[in-house]
Amino acid sequence: MNVKRLEANHRLSQAAVFGNTVYLTGQVGSEADTLGEQTRSVLASIDRLLALAGTDKSNVIQATIWLADRNDFPGMNTVWDEWVDKSNPPVRSTAQVDLLVPGQKVEITVVAALPK
Amino acid sequence: MNVKRLEANHRLSQAAVFGNTVYLTGQVGSEADTLGEQTRSVLASIDRLLALAGTDKSNVIQATIWLADRNDFPGMNTVWDEWVDKSNPPVRSTAQVDLLVPGQKVEITVVAALPK
Amino acid sequence: MNVKRLEANHRLSQAAVFGNTVYLTGQVGSEADTLGEQTRSVLASIDRLLALAGTDKSNVIQATIWLADRNDFPGMNTVWDEWVDKSNPPVRSTAQVDLLVPGQKVEITVVAALPK
Repeated sequence: MNVKRLEANHRLSQAAVFGNTVYLTGQVGSEADTLGEQTRSVLASIDRLLALAGTDKSNVIQATIWLADRNDFPGMNTVWDEWVDKSNPPVRSTAQVDLLVPGQKVEITVVAALPK
Repeated sequence: MNVKRLEANHRLSQAAVFGNTVYLTGQVGSEADTLGEQTRSVLASIDRLLALAGTDKSNVIQATIWLADRNDFPGMNTVWDEWVDKSNPPVRSTAQVDLLVPGQKVEITVVAALPK
Repeated sequence: MNVKRLEANHRLSQAAVFGNTVYLTGQVGSEADTLGEQTRSVLASIDRLLALAGTDKSNVIQATIWLADRNDFPGMNTVWDEWVDKSNPPVRSTAQVDLLVPGQKVEITVVAALPK
């Protein structure tokens, strides 16, 4: 059983599949965008990578959410609530941290299951 | 093999079970409580959710600890050391971050094994 | 299937093996060292623990990188790029957080696969 890497460059992969579990790199949006736009962009990137790995948001197990400003928690949640599979919501942990690029407001890292 | 969700609402689940692995949402205490009280409350929540999933603290694999104040590291460790299964301690990573609610001092996210 | 703990003390283990997955405690360097030295030290600790668990860096699935100063991102990446298996890079998530000991500049937590 090997680790399968998707969209790998010399430094990192955007997704790694091991057994039935899919790990994604933390996704970010464009620092020029609003919090709502960045959150939608992050979730769209997650959808795209999950599809590439052969799964979808109904199989997300765990989400780790990093917000640059805790006051963005309600705004992030509004977009999250529109996106999440309400019958299959993952576990979540959220903290306020500084992201790597000034202006980046949200980064989300997920672990998901591959359907069998 | 599907993901089983425990204590799910429209946004998140408190626990997700995939195969033999259990993932919990980051647990927090009440912002009115002291660091010691919050840490005990967090660990009690973890015990409760692990039991609900069919496992216990002797099977915790990984803990991620977020502290709002690095000076609380010794105080958190005192409560942790009373709680942890000394024969089966998990791997740990700890950082100082701002939590979502002012006054929240500690959040702990764990991944555990289901006994077979 | 039990969790196997490596280099455990009363509080935590440096590595935990569950099934085919290896989890490491977040590794840090010495606060007296430069960013480059700390990053090399962290990656050497990861190599050592992965070997102890029976695997190596070609099997790293996920890395979570905490930097105390986002300006150290390029410097950390330089050392990372020399270290990482370019044919098998993991997924990564990086944030700026405060580490527990003043002077600590980088902490890296990895999850890896055991080769079969």
